[in-house]
Amino acid sequence: MQVQLSWVQITGSNKMTSLQQENTSVVLHKRDREEKPLCDIVVENLKVREPADNEVIVRMNSVGICGSDVHIWMTSGIGHFMMNGPMVAGHEASGTIEKCGNKVKHLKPGDRVAIEPGYPLTEDEFSKSGRYNLSEDLFFGSAPPDNGLLQRYYTHRADFCYKLPDNVSFEEGALIEPLSVAIHSCRRVGVTLGHRVLVLGSGPIGLVSLLVAKAYGAASVIVVDILASRLEKAKELGANFTLEVKAGEKPQETARKIKELLGGMPDRTLECTGSEAGLQTGIYATKSGGRLAVIGVGESNKTLPIVHAAMREVDIIGIFRYCNTWPAAINMLASGQIDVKSLVTHRFPIEKAQEAFEFTRGGKGIKVMIKCEKD
Amino acid sequence: MQVQLSWVQITGSNKMTSLQQENTSVVLHKRDREEKPLCDIVVENLKVREPADNEVIVRMNSVGICGSDVHIWMTSGIGHFMMNGPMVAGHEASGTIEKCGNKVKHLKPGDRVAIEPGYPLTEDEFSKSGRYNLSEDLFFGSAPPDNGLLQRYYTHRADFCYKLPDNVSFEEGALIEPLSVAIHSCRRVGVTLGHRVLVLGSGPIGLVSLLVAKAYGAASVIVVDILASRLEKAKELGANFTLEVKAGEKPQETARKIKELLGGMPDRTLECTGSEAGLQTGIYATKSGGRLAVIGVGESNKTLPIVHAAMREVDIIGIFRYCNTWPAAINMLASGQIDVKSLVTHRFPIEKAQEAFEFTRGGKGIKVMIKCEKD
Amino acid sequence: MQVQLSWVQITGSNKMTSLQQENTSVVLHKRDREEKPLCDIVVENLKVREPADNEVIVRMNSVGICGSDVHIWMTSGIGHFMMNGPMVAGHEASGTIEKCGNKVKHLKPGDRVAIEPGYPLTEDEFSKSGRYNLSEDLFFGSAPPDNGLLQRYYTHRADFCYKLPDNVSFEEGALIEPLSVAIHSCRRVGVTLGHRVLVLGSGPIGLVSLLVAKAYGAASVIVVDILASRLEKAKELGANFTLEVKAGEKPQETARKIKELLGGMPDRTLECTGSEAGLQTGIYATKSGGRLAVIGVGESNKTLPIVHAAMREVDIIGIFRYCNTWPAAINMLASGQIDVKSLVTHRFPIEKAQEAFEFTRGGKGIKVMIKCEKD
Amino acid sequence: MQVQLSWVQITGSNKMTSLQQENTSVVLHKRDREEKPLCDIVVENLKVREPADNEVIVRMNSVGICGSDVHIWMTSGIGHFMMNGPMVAGHEASGTIEKCGNKVKHLKPGDRVAIEPGYPLTEDEFSKSGRYNLSEDLFFGSAPPDNGLLQRYYTHRADFCYKLPDNVSFEEGALIEPLSVAIHSCRRVGVTLGHRVLVLGSGPIGLVSLLVAKAYGAASVIVVDILASRLEKAKELGANFTLEVKAGEKPQETARKIKELLGGMPDRTLECTGSEAGLQTGIYATKSGGRLAVIGVGESNKTLPIVHAAMREVDIIGIFRYCNTWPAAINMLASGQIDVKSLVTHRFPIEKAQEAFEFTRGGKGIKVMIKCEKD
Repeated sequence: MQVQLSWVQITGSNKMTSLQQENTSVVLHKRDREEKPLCDIVVENLKVREPADNEVIVRMNSVGICGSDVHIWMTSGIGHFMMNGPMVAGHEASGTIEKCGNKVKHLKPGDRVAIEPGYPLTEDEFSKSGRYNLSEDLFFGSAPPDNGLLQRYYTHRADFCYKLPDNVSFEEGALIEPLSVAIHSCRRVGVTLGHRVLVLGSGPIGLVSLLVAKAYGAASVIVVDILASRLEKAKELGANFTLEVKAGEKPQETARKIKELLGGMPDRTLECTGSEAGLQTGIYATKSGGRLAVIGVGESNKTLPIVHAAMREVDIIGIFRYCNTWPAAINMLASGQIDVKSLVTHRFPIEKAQEAFEFTRGGKGIKVMIKCEKD
Repeated sequence: MQVQLSWVQITGSNKMTSLQQENTSVVLHKRDREEKPLCDIVVENLKVREPADNEVIVRMNSVGICGSDVHIWMTSGIGHFMMNGPMVAGHEASGTIEKCGNKVKHLKPGDRVAIEPGYPLTEDEFSKSGRYNLSEDLFFGSAPPDNGLLQRYYTHRADFCYKLPDNVSFEEGALIEPLSVAIHSCRRVGVTLGHRVLVLGSGPIGLVSLLVAKAYGAASVIVVDILASRLEKAKELGANFTLEVKAGEKPQETARKIKELLGGMPDRTLECTGSEAGLQTGIYATKSGGRLAVIGVGESNKTLPIVHAAMREVDIIGIFRYCNTWPAAINMLASGQIDVKSLVTHRFPIEKAQEAFEFTRGGKGIKVMIKCEKD
Repeated sequence: MQVQLSWVQITGSNKMTSLQQENTSVVLHKRDREEKPLCDIVVENLKVREPADNEVIVRMNSVGICGSDVHIWMTSGIGHFMMNGPMVAGHEASGTIEKCGNKVKHLKPGDRVAIEPGYPLTEDEFSKSGRYNLSEDLFFGSAPPDNGLLQRYYTHRADFCYKLPDNVSFEEGALIEPLSVAIHSCRRVGVTLGHRVLVLGSGPIGLVSLLVAKAYGAASVIVVDILASRLEKAKELGANFTLEVKAGEKPQETARKIKELLGGMPDRTLECTGSEAGLQTGIYATKSGGRLAVIGVGESNKTLPIVHAAMREVDIIGIFRYCNTWPAAINMLASGQIDVKSLVTHRFPIEKAQEAFEFTRGGKGIKVMIKCEKD
Repeated sequence: MQVQLSWVQITGSNKMTSLQQENTSVVLHKRDREEKPLCDIVVENLKVREPADNEVIVRMNSVGICGSDVHIWMTSGIGHFMMNGPMVAGHEASGTIEKCGNKVKHLKPGDRVAIEPGYPLTEDEFSKSGRYNLSEDLFFGSAPPDNGLLQRYYTHRADFCYKLPDNVSFEEGALIEPLSVAIHSCRRVGVTLGHRVLVLGSGPIGLVSLLVAKAYGAASVIVVDILASRLEKAKELGANFTLEVKAGEKPQETARKIKELLGGMPDRTLECTGSEAGLQTGIYATKSGGRLAVIGVGESNKTLPIVHAAMREVDIIGIFRYCNTWPAAINMLASGQIDVKSLVTHRFPIEKAQEAFEFTRGGKGIKVMIKCEKD
């Protein structure tokens, strides 16, 4: 991880683009205090960075707010990524090409694009072999200290901007980012035709995991959560079964109920809660020879029934973001094989970013979109 | 391949079951003549074979007629499998458990089952490692000289009978056999989420390949044939595109049209025609790094642009029947993720088997079902 | 798991073979007391069980003592496998075919064989798909309550006896069992050409893991243990590096030393200690995108830095015994690609089994072989 | 494929480096005539190209001559790659870093490196997903019209130069290129522990395929050729069996002999002859469920027993160059797991390039190295 765009560059660069439009941006400023949120949300005007040969300027349209955006606002960092100055927020994004660098061939002004917010900065062993998400030298927009995408105009690597077909909306384009987490997870654990799948957690990532598991051929999906209210949406989106877990219920007991409802143990499990109980439940529930994706994060260390996993060859598969997911996601959205539109429940203009963040923090709605275009 | 049930055993066995019912069966008898069909179709009454410890007697309900059944009727063999005496036809089948062998645990009389018609006769390297379709010592019902399943009562290995849920019909159960060819093919070539898929040929196998490719996550499927009439059904079943090929059209030209229609080269190709032109088209059409399944059979030797395939790393993947497909297929049918009902266009009682075979030979309808129950 | 040969069958069967030879066997009898060992080792004469159609009688030659044999002797069980009566010990075995069942084709009396001690009892989803070690209905010789192989004459499924070429000794044949654990582990985690490999623990399984990792193409292997004395053998067997860990050393610190010695983080890790510290070290040490095999067992629950694993996509792969390993192992031994002879450090005649078990329990030597033939 | 360094750039660039040394280079000039060779080999002095930010200048040490170099000299092209002006030859290369571009971090002047001669010019779907050899926009040194590496000083992308450990010689470094073809092939077809492997052809690629197959764990390798003399070297390098094929021998007959010698059908086949007979032999010889790599090129269209391949699920896997092979190869050479030194049979100074090419064309020796350093 590296600071690609330092604050000084953004505010002070002389290499400003010819674009003289105002560039409204949502910037987190760390405050000097103990109580949360540790950052202020400042909507301010930043200069637009001129694109390098292989870059483009995107006139942003839709940027979704992710739980991690709220987390950084609250705590000024996430995991070991710490803010070292003001930072633009946001990474679930789409927009329209405004200007192309000299060597950009596959895009032209006016093209509508979805943006993959992270990319490797060098060609190392990981990026050469197709797992660029693990590269040791990575840019990721809005992972501190790298600036994010919540701006009127945003400059990005052209080859990580993907042209949207006419029948895929900007909001669908922005949703490819969370979809990508689910695609990467299903791909890594090998969800496939006929599988029974367990999704632990029914937040936004749990919900897209449900949709994506079905698109990968899962025959039936059960979604488990501790809040009955959140399970409603899972039902609506096509969960074959839902299960509300009582606080303090033993993981083995939850696993037993899951098997009963599904009519068999799940072949694959997608753990999206990040809790110790969730991971334990996943291990007990998953069928021998199956796989469990660790998607949710939570506490660094967890006590796990690891011998139970090993003796049944239940593999525990780590998930860090995604790679190589945008083209597949666009094809799915374009062909109507997957429908994510109903995930967007609320919209705010970029000027009201503060309000949008407050709303998201309150746990209302599923996906909140910030609209960045002028009118 | 081995004669498991010789004719003498069937007609002359003393170990007859207590089932005294008549057992109407459809038997091919080779005739001594040059013109096709080389076999007579005889509907006759055979004794029911008593089940061994790990076998069951199934009261058959629905048996589909496959192109290979017609081929054997016409030619008294298929490939290197040659009839050496009268032989019961049929291998796409479902029915109800009538009686269980002593050690059968997972089934009981009255259970509705789909039947996998082939199984390994010994535990060799192939069956131990999960590719039992390649075992060197195999029984396969209706592959000469092994007797098939087109009877009122049929005795089979219990562990190759799979219980059907209440919401899966007998006809759907019988269709799992052709579905399995498509599942095995999609699995071997790795059809997955977001793929563009090319299906060459729109006969029954081409049509189930279309359905199954979609269930594996294909974003768009193009079906290609030389008969416009057959492409209609592909459209109905959800083909995103269809292409009618003119006789004598160059494979490279067909490949070009496929790319144009799909909006990109197909990631995977399922060749179901068995023709040289089909295979050549598949090689030219498939995207670099993609895979092509050789499902159709046809002439033993074919001239192929193999350097073109190799230099673009288009892999040519052989398909021989299937293995480990029934459980996934049943899950898909039970959850409604795949709908095959409309494939069955005509039905005949077992007594009218001759008529059913004639009808199928005429190329009318898609899938013809023979109903074996007394009514 | 199932009692295949109940005690009564062994001692009381009327279906005794024509073999009238005495059949010296090593039997564990549970004692009624609190202090270890909980079992007596009794060398007694058992009748030889007549082979079924697909079975053979083997005149046993060499049976290695495994740590699990000693564990059962001490505690009358292992994990959830509990003795429910007297039980023959031993499962690392080779011998000569004495008699074949009626349907056995690939073996004849006089053939020298290595014996795979476990096999599935039914054809379920796991055995059909090539992962028979996970089958829910399994026989495994010497896993309580299934009788083991430490006898003069032992009756086994013919298709789990593998013919040994002339240039592979009986002791090498017996060592295929522990080799199989390493083969299955390397296969599951994908050790391959050029890899750096970390082996945690230098007991017998750690040592064969070292040998097998090299045979799979590992460029360099580091073996880690807390006992310097055990690391000597690892050096002799070709470890590129060894590391003695101090008691109480932090896993992160051990991981740092491993990286330094290897000249890079290990691509794959084989954890053979079963300790929490070992598993933690494995997670910290393994390169991003790598895999760690959980081979050692130990405490059921362990506290693990699971987020650290997940964020670097270090997958945690469970290992339960093995499947489909004997043919590969025999090919490797026959071609001299792998040399295991020096692992056998001590030998005892079957009559002195008690002494052999005591010796093994004392931690002396590496692999102790019991010789079962008469002279 | 793209002209990265046009001839004009090389000869006329004003952005010459401060390196004022002469830069002896081996350049192919197309001649205006019908008889072979169609090109002249001209040893001439070219300016050294100044490195871009992510490039390095390498003081070349050893460059091997490949069959394709000779082919281009003879015919002014290879496959669809055609010369469009004078072109530097050579692509199997190693040397010492002379100068680094501004952003190069992992190398410094004085580092000894092996050079991967091809790399993608943009980040497209193929390069992002780890198969950069299939990228549609590729530079490959000495594939017309891209200039090759046979120079005193050569400028290349830094991230495709790999540091050599002290114990790996320059000649070993240059041999990584042909080794990479074998590594990519073994990886794609999955050569692994215990396999029987068939190598068709015992030219340089056949010989490195033998060595690499063993390093991947092959238990036994048979090498087949029509020239007894070439099989000698295969024996020396460790082939377990060799087989001389008579001209006109039926592929089925050769396949039968291979099975007999190996004691079983080969699990994997590496076809390095590019002949129709070779490919047919490979299909008949390979075990059911196995894989065959198409490495040799030859005639574009070949008649193949494709139904025989498909019905036994023998997959035909295309090989185009390689990707992600240098790090593994360096680890193998450094650890001594693979010994390629004896492959280099002859050496010539760069000034005598003409002589070296003539010698190689004559089919003498195995690998001819050109030494590029001044003394």
